[in-house]
Amino acid sequence: MKQYALLVLLTGLLSTTSQGQQALTREPPLVSPEIHDNHSVTFRLKAPTATTATMSGNWMRSEGFARPSATMQKGADGIWSYTTDVLSPEFYTYSFTVDGLRAIDPNNAHVIRDVANVSNALLIDGEFANLYKVNDVPHGSVSRRWYNSPGNTKRRRITIYTPSGYEMGKETYPVLYLMHGIGGDEEAWMGLGRASQILDNLIAQGKAKPMIVVMTNGNVSQDAAPGEGSDGYTKPSFMLPQTMDGKFEETFGDILTFVDNNYRTRKTKAGRAIAGLSMGGYHTAYISQNYPNTFDYMGLFSPALNNKPEDHPQSLAYQKLDLKLKKQMDNGYKLYWVAVGRDDVPILLAGIGDFRKKMDTIGMTYEFKETDGGHTWPNWRKYLTEFAQKIF
Amino acid sequence: MKQYALLVLLTGLLSTTSQGQQALTREPPLVSPEIHDNHSVTFRLKAPTATTATMSGNWMRSEGFARPSATMQKGADGIWSYTTDVLSPEFYTYSFTVDGLRAIDPNNAHVIRDVANVSNALLIDGEFANLYKVNDVPHGSVSRRWYNSPGNTKRRRITIYTPSGYEMGKETYPVLYLMHGIGGDEEAWMGLGRASQILDNLIAQGKAKPMIVVMTNGNVSQDAAPGEGSDGYTKPSFMLPQTMDGKFEETFGDILTFVDNNYRTRKTKAGRAIAGLSMGGYHTAYISQNYPNTFDYMGLFSPALNNKPEDHPQSLAYQKLDLKLKKQMDNGYKLYWVAVGRDDVPILLAGIGDFRKKMDTIGMTYEFKETDGGHTWPNWRKYLTEFAQKIF
Repeated sequence: MKQYALLVLLTGLLSTTSQGQQALTREPPLVSPEIHDNHSVTFRLKAPTATTATMSGNWMRSEGFARPSATMQKGADGIWSYTTDVLSPEFYTYSFTVDGLRAIDPNNAHVIRDVANVSNALLIDGEFANLYKVNDVPHGSVSRRWYNSPGNTKRRRITIYTPSGYEMGKETYPVLYLMHGIGGDEEAWMGLGRASQILDNLIAQGKAKPMIVVMTNGNVSQDAAPGEGSDGYTKPSFMLPQTMDGKFEETFGDILTFVDNNYRTRKTKAGRAIAGLSMGGYHTAYISQNYPNTFDYMGLFSPALNNKPEDHPQSLAYQKLDLKLKKQMDNGYKLYWVAVGRDDVPILLAGIGDFRKKMDTIGMTYEFKETDGGHTWPNWRKYLTEFAQKIF
Repeated sequence: MKQYALLVLLTGLLSTTSQGQQALTREPPLVSPEIHDNHSVTFRLKAPTATTATMSGNWMRSEGFARPSATMQKGADGIWSYTTDVLSPEFYTYSFTVDGLRAIDPNNAHVIRDVANVSNALLIDGEFANLYKVNDVPHGSVSRRWYNSPGNTKRRRITIYTPSGYEMGKETYPVLYLMHGIGGDEEAWMGLGRASQILDNLIAQGKAKPMIVVMTNGNVSQDAAPGEGSDGYTKPSFMLPQTMDGKFEETFGDILTFVDNNYRTRKTKAGRAIAGLSMGGYHTAYISQNYPNTFDYMGLFSPALNNKPEDHPQSLAYQKLDLKLKKQMDNGYKLYWVAVGRDDVPILLAGIGDFRKKMDTIGMTYEFKETDGGHTWPNWRKYLTEFAQKIF
């Protein structure tokens, strides 16, 4: 009776949803991706009448401007497949292209948005990538909240991680302010960045101090991530106005006020760190110069310092920057950490070189770390992992 | 100089990510969906070598077991398109099928997962659908937290909405416990359900009382939604074990304890409501019977009462149900609300009919609302909208 009732219920439900009906009439679903014991991966896709199918994954190396891709092989059953070499541990993204149409894997429901593109997610575990998984450890909480930003005359969305135990305790916590790159938003570090998993795991292992992590939205012309704010379901834009014109730096005080008023924070310089990737590294540099004696730890991950704040002479935040940098040095701090991949694009490497020269000239102390790889999320996850262990 | 620096930066970034490179080399992106002033919508898709393309959207009516779809027309430029009739206000989902391959719209980054399928999102505003938008009103906070469930010997994830003003105030709030259907999880009401937008807007309009909304995961064999828990990126399952065997009802006390210990709740019957869709309606019925004098408001949205708890004689929660129902009646409550669409599947309508007869026989009071439509999210969003205005 139980089986019958469930079956009839299921059949009924399936007949009323388009997704369900598809499930009812199709053959047993393909397994894709299939992660083999040796960590090679087979991808499969049914497209019987297609004439070409390729796939693209971020384990593939780009050569020049050609988009890296691999050709899939068509079987007699109309199923295309491709098997990778052994993949090293990492959180990967991939997509298919079938007769020129970019498509996600219909057998993998795990997707992630990067600016205006949706890709599938795939985790190969082991080594450092185990930090990106949900392990059996105490978990922090992740809240999406809205703060009032008088400086931008709007409510704005913000993502806040509080470590396990925060809610039931009484102690105060240090705060890491963590910022995204161009085209990102307050969701970026939670999605591709794996920030809550990395922090949960490092804290559980005793390798990072319990801390609050505040993930901001640096595009002050929007109130929230695409689909989460007043812009509704408009197309996400890679280059929004007002991302690097000084307005975010000028109104960062609204965020500091909100966080210190709403959380049990250590309201001291020693209790605050600030870091960001690419554009967020640029923001880190100039926010930390403009809020003197506010942060003891700066983390610039592949920072986009080739941008020139001097190009925005109207910005209060971008005036007298040399003086502000000197002041930051004289005030003192515990860590100024700059990391970049040696395969990053030349203009960014040059911008970082110029900034280092400026710091060297005035005798400002910083740690510089050059790693493998380029301007990629695999590097930024590793930089967060390392930086989080160095602070507080 | 500014423009040059940005352009070079952009070019550099694009060359290092596969998504970016695609953006660099492709033509101007198509606009899809394009919502016209009269609320008809044009969808476009570039697939020059494809021989068939159809699309499926949940505004289309299903006829029997055929999956509703519309044929797209191919233009000389290789772009397929389809324009709908005028669509009434609603939050819609859709997908394409190109030469037999199910695909999302590559020009619409807004996607939503329903069990194991990913579809695109589309909002036509106006009327009740304005409640599904992020409007310029004070917003509540949404937290993903983990509670300890000793009854299931694991940590489990839970989604909690607190209304605007909660964090800065001192007053206590009533709590609505809100449950998903088969194949859903603690994300369902936030995604397809639009719960935080509906509550934000109703509260701002003074139509619903400020309340906490607790969105549970009723699949006790898993710790969290697919991709968010220890199962990692395994394929989401429509029918998990232990969803309707009594274990969720038996361990619901772990959730009540967590919420009352962690939030400023009204710890009285008058301060608690419980509701759910489909399987969540079934859970609502049996949780409210098993926790006597705990809830003053019950909401059963298209409840799957054709399932028979009697089929699980080992479950403590499912013993002496007739006595428990009589007790629930005798204890009294303020609202027992059952809603269903008249086009729902016959077996569900029959199960609801049987349950009503049982309530009628013992003289138990309830409100019954029959609406248009079937077993669908458009109905469940409307039921939440109506129920939220009736409670507290």
